[in-house]
Amino acid sequence: MFVLNRVQSINNIFRQVNLIKNALENNYPLKRWLHDHLTLAILGENLSFPYVWLRDNCQCEMCFHQSARSRILDWSNFDLDVKPRDVVRDENSLQVTWTDGHKSKFDLNWLKFRSFTADNQQRYNEAIYKPKKITWSGEQFQKICTKHEYDEILNSDKGLYNWLLKLSTYGVALIQNTPNSETAIDSIVERIGFTKRTHYGVKFIVQHVANTSNVAYLSSNLQMHTDLPYYEYCPGANLLHCLVQTKSLGGENLLSDGHFIAEHIKENYPDQYKLLTEVEVEWSDIGTEDKNDFFKLYRAPVICLDKHGAVTRINFSIPQRGSHFPGTIDMVKPWYEAHRLFLALNHRFSAKFKTKEGDILAFDNIRLLHGRNAYEDNNDNVRKLIGAYVDWDEIYSRLRCLKIKLKSEDTVY
Amino acid sequence: MFVLNRVQSINNIFRQVNLIKNALENNYPLKRWLHDHLTLAILGENLSFPYVWLRDNCQCEMCFHQSARSRILDWSNFDLDVKPRDVVRDENSLQVTWTDGHKSKFDLNWLKFRSFTADNQQRYNEAIYKPKKITWSGEQFQKICTKHEYDEILNSDKGLYNWLLKLSTYGVALIQNTPNSETAIDSIVERIGFTKRTHYGVKFIVQHVANTSNVAYLSSNLQMHTDLPYYEYCPGANLLHCLVQTKSLGGENLLSDGHFIAEHIKENYPDQYKLLTEVEVEWSDIGTEDKNDFFKLYRAPVICLDKHGAVTRINFSIPQRGSHFPGTIDMVKPWYEAHRLFLALNHRFSAKFKTKEGDILAFDNIRLLHGRNAYEDNNDNVRKLIGAYVDWDEIYSRLRCLKIKLKSEDTVY
Repeated sequence: MFVLNRVQSINNIFRQVNLIKNALENNYPLKRWLHDHLTLAILGENLSFPYVWLRDNCQCEMCFHQSARSRILDWSNFDLDVKPRDVVRDENSLQVTWTDGHKSKFDLNWLKFRSFTADNQQRYNEAIYKPKKITWSGEQFQKICTKHEYDEILNSDKGLYNWLLKLSTYGVALIQNTPNSETAIDSIVERIGFTKRTHYGVKFIVQHVANTSNVAYLSSNLQMHTDLPYYEYCPGANLLHCLVQTKSLGGENLLSDGHFIAEHIKENYPDQYKLLTEVEVEWSDIGTEDKNDFFKLYRAPVICLDKHGAVTRINFSIPQRGSHFPGTIDMVKPWYEAHRLFLALNHRFSAKFKTKEGDILAFDNIRLLHGRNAYEDNNDNVRKLIGAYVDWDEIYSRLRCLKIKLKSEDTVY
Repeated sequence: MFVLNRVQSINNIFRQVNLIKNALENNYPLKRWLHDHLTLAILGENLSFPYVWLRDNCQCEMCFHQSARSRILDWSNFDLDVKPRDVVRDENSLQVTWTDGHKSKFDLNWLKFRSFTADNQQRYNEAIYKPKKITWSGEQFQKICTKHEYDEILNSDKGLYNWLLKLSTYGVALIQNTPNSETAIDSIVERIGFTKRTHYGVKFIVQHVANTSNVAYLSSNLQMHTDLPYYEYCPGANLLHCLVQTKSLGGENLLSDGHFIAEHIKENYPDQYKLLTEVEVEWSDIGTEDKNDFFKLYRAPVICLDKHGAVTRINFSIPQRGSHFPGTIDMVKPWYEAHRLFLALNHRFSAKFKTKEGDILAFDNIRLLHGRNAYEDNNDNVRKLIGAYVDWDEIYSRLRCLKIKLKSEDTVY
């Protein structure tokens, strides 16, 4: 093991003992690693990098394709026990000559940004991977729902970045002063990337239709829901451009933060939390749109968790919950009780407001529930929204590109 | 509790005792359910249905919108303790009058298809939810990779159904005799639905490009991989239309069944299986395509499992594995060992073949690994493929619609 610049501190030795202990406790195979890494001080921190990781991430032209920014190293010949023959460090870089003569050079900032300490990993996550989410309840809505100008999003990278950052942090952000045209929303979508197409189209129109394929196209109460939970690849964000708002009573939007509700249930109703996170429901949509038949089914709990217990997705829709319950009969009644609780809490903690013509309401469709109160069209006033979905893959990608472009971080990516 | 047609058998009582036992063991809240369901004999089986489920799934016009085929029952007033006042059964239907006077009518076949016994649920799953997957190793490839005619898929629902069923069962199925045009693949896609668009376009061209944004657009060896693992919504199926095949040596495709490899590793290398299913990797793609910047990142293990331990998705790509390793340092070396094992086994159990001009190779991109041997273009012979992705949401939807259309099942959906 190479130790550069300073002797390892007692703390560092303790850390290594803990790593071995953790590895043994987790029952992972543990071989040779202690003698298989290089430790060096970068900006006051002792950081360790496994030889195998360094060799795998060699940035030279033979190992890494510069325009594709991709590893091209041939793994059929890769030596897992690769060792350095010589290591030279200068102010800004580390140069390693491996026993087979291959040479690698690493920028020190580049290394530090990829280092394995918990602090550095956390910094990387929030700087690059995904912005942290902040939950809210209805009474905080006026504060957290920021308003953004249509023109600014179109013409300024900073404007676009701010809007997308708010959307990913709070799950909702409003655009105002949008031109009164069915295609105005397209320019916003193009600033991000492209829409997520579904069987309802590349975009969709929300308007009262009598013999509809979807209850969202009715003027009656639209109970709180997430859109299209029957898609395994459920649309990530929903953009709804209000072209014509109803002049009748009603037509208000309801919005609630499913992540806030999940936290609340976890804390106060642990039995129901277990049911809502574990019992799979069959979400369903069957019909014909634009002469094409569809029959979508997808099974997932109301609250989906990752393996760390963090909420990844909320599914909720009374109309689009299928009649087939894919669980045991003893789960049915308790699950229905938890389902009612979830709905009631979403109403209790929801925000109510009415969008204006020219507004584009943008919200996270796998996090927020939305609904709409009943309204009445008349001959001179037919409520009309244009909708488009954009996936989080594209939104996060655009956020990362903008962050670099705007140089809001001085990190080497 | 209503008991119709026959006294419950001893077996049924045992079953109920077991259900209570299971529920208690699973620590789920258990209230009143024993007296909250209705049992009736349908075609020789005693089947039970909870009252709350029956009321929630009332099919009358007030509770269920006929053209949207969706529940419109108002859940803000829903009574979880709903009880029948009267139950009448005739040869084909069950009619329930609830204590509030509301009447529901159910078709008996409809009920049976949705019943809660393990056997009936299994039948439903395979008939409707998703066809069962069958795994294979390279030496079985010639047998399992069926060949389908382009014209038949376009002109016959049965032909389309057969192709999609093979594709979903084995993860691969070949279309042959495709017209030699860049748009021929579009007609196949339209028979299913539409493509999954990515930052590489609505479709994409695979051809040697010197300063490329993606290593797939080079003529060197293309190591075995899945496409676009850095997408959370990773393209489901890959359709590759061979317009021009290379006349040089090389250019053969390699294909392996990641589900077969996963089973093999689970059985023979449990430590590595744990690493490949638990350690998250950061998949990455950074660059510019068609003047649009992208910076995609997604974290997931190589082998992704659902909570039942079934494989849901395989991620593998040497070029698109990022340089940031989002785990602890002690995981690095063991994980690299598991990674090498995974790659080696995919090679050992792969099939090798060379597509012909006019072939569309269709394969499951979240299940199979694919690769290609190096080749050489010359002025008269430039290898060229047209590619399109289609998501499983759309493929399964089309399969379900076709199954009903072809009446291959006599079930009431």
